Amino acid sequence: MRELGEFGLIARMNAGRGQAPNVVLGPGDDAAVIAAPAGRYVVSADMLMQDRHFRLDWSSPHEIGAKAIAQNAADIVAMGSAPSAFLVSLGCPAETTVDFIDGLVDGLWAEAGRAGGSIAGGDVVSAPLLVISVTAFGDPADRPPVLRSGARPGDLVAIAGRLGWSAAGLALLSAGIDPGRFPEIVAAHRVPRPPYESVLGLPRGAAVTAMTDVSDGLLADIGHIAESSGVAIDLDADAVRDPALDRAAKLMDADPLTWVLTGGEDHAFAATFAAGQHLPDGWTPIGRVEAGDGVTVNRRAWSGPVGWESFAGGG
Amino acid sequence: MRELGEFGLIARMNAGRGQAPNVVLGPGDDAAVIAAPAGRYVVSADMLMQDRHFRLDWSSPHEIGAKAIAQNAADIVAMGSAPSAFLVSLGCPAETTVDFIDGLVDGLWAEAGRAGGSIAGGDVVSAPLLVISVTAFGDPADRPPVLRSGARPGDLVAIAGRLGWSAAGLALLSAGIDPGRFPEIVAAHRVPRPPYESVLGLPRGAAVTAMTDVSDGLLADIGHIAESSGVAIDLDADAVRDPALDRAAKLMDADPLTWVLTGGEDHAFAATFAAGQHLPDGWTPIGRVEAGDGVTVNRRAWSGPVGWESFAGGG
Repeated sequence: MRELGEFGLIARMNAGRGQAPNVVLGPGDDAAVIAAPAGRYVVSADMLMQDRHFRLDWSSPHEIGAKAIAQNAADIVAMGSAPSAFLVSLGCPAETTVDFIDGLVDGLWAEAGRAGGSIAGGDVVSAPLLVISVTAFGDPADRPPVLRSGARPGDLVAIAGRLGWSAAGLALLSAGIDPGRFPEIVAAHRVPRPPYESVLGLPRGAAVTAMTDVSDGLLADIGHIAESSGVAIDLDADAVRDPALDRAAKLMDADPLTWVLTGGEDHAFAATFAAGQHLPDGWTPIGRVEAGDGVTVNRRAWSGPVGWESFAGGG
Repeated sequence: MRELGEFGLIARMNAGRGQAPNVVLGPGDDAAVIAAPAGRYVVSADMLMQDRHFRLDWSSPHEIGAKAIAQNAADIVAMGSAPSAFLVSLGCPAETTVDFIDGLVDGLWAEAGRAGGSIAGGDVVSAPLLVISVTAFGDPADRPPVLRSGARPGDLVAIAGRLGWSAAGLALLSAGIDPGRFPEIVAAHRVPRPPYESVLGLPRGAAVTAMTDVSDGLLADIGHIAESSGVAIDLDADAVRDPALDRAAKLMDADPLTWVLTGGEDHAFAATFAAGQHLPDGWTPIGRVEAGDGVTVNRRAWSGPVGWESFAGGG
């Protein structure tokens, strides 16, 4: 990094890369220009800090780059919008190797491509630790953005993607368990795999009334929908249970339901669908919207170890 | 900050603030929604790192916030676009005081308002030092973006705003000179004041062929225009000289022309105008575009102390 310099690093981030169709002007001028065919666009930003959001000894540079894009792309998709472009600002210690940067940049581009966008620009500055700040842009096409506030009593609550895997992977890594014993679970912690296509491929008629991505934990994020919509939500514990986590939970003497209900960073999508329709492919029913407030599990406030009380309302 | 928590801090950043007209949906959901009446939008990102881009003992929280927005807004305006919104991701030590945050947030909002936009969202994370990552969005209206690549031989080079003040202020602060002796110059370092209105108020007929903001230093940034446009540019030393810097330069035994030519962070605007037109209000002629390559000052390559050689071409 010290040898490469800021301009060399920026050039390296973009060499041989093709921009996504909506990127009218990519890196190289004072700013990038992006098309907004719908006359509006969707934006979200997240900052990842070394030793807090990732550890250099637990994740490869490629995984760190992919994770940074995935969690931002998930926010765009959770609005029902298609990711089109990303800006990446990188704070980087002078001793960072070129190999590390190449891996990180490959990871950024790989996940941007998986989400349907490209890296349209950014910034590189010297820093005492690695900081990755991503802004994601999305195109809502002709659909109104899907907010957290549209859930109505009677709606079905459904999920697309995995829950609790990232928390389980983190627990395994923290305990020093050989990652080779649970490769898929540990991989899920290193790089979330939001099922973008389950949202972006929704049939036009699908009556999604509210949506969010699960970044803070299912109960917390479903709680955001309940609060924004002014409704209560009851979840079915059996419907969210994932037997794939049982063996890891037994080894760790942990409760797998706690991982599923309170583990963040999986970036699954949680949505509510108007009653009476067939759920689209990729979506599993996990509960129901009711009048009232708060979130319950099997009609009871969750009393697990992760502060669930603060989210409980009158069920 | 530890007491406030992430959600408390985010709420504090937005309490009682009104969003700019183009912000369709502000903070509170997975993403913000911004109008793009022109069917496209302009985006730029910059990251500011404590002790590198600002010092807590030299700048107030308000000044740091204003500076973070100003340097991003300048990139949008340098494309000929009007700033509409900003996302701010903040990395913040746990011991940061609420007073500090309030000052910083006031500074962000004050400069966003001066530029014509609002803070439409962002992220807050815990960090070992203060990191401010801003993304700025702009509306090009019905004008094509003004690139760096449009300068043509015969064009006039002109500047709007101050040059060298930020570098002079930094030199004074670094030397421990009482800021009260040069309050305006030191203030210019603490908070750049890009003259947004000199660009956004340009008459429709103004034939601006290329533009950039002066962030890396006049010679470097004019060099970007020369290189992107495939032209040579000759600057007139007498035209860029600023007598207001002479007294500080004498005290510091420094060359004021070096501050003007190589000092960055003033975020003045440098542009080229098609020959034969009257320069609009706020713009001062400082040179001319010619065939060839490289940047010269009074027809000679600049041999000052800041590595100007790397930018010199055959003049």
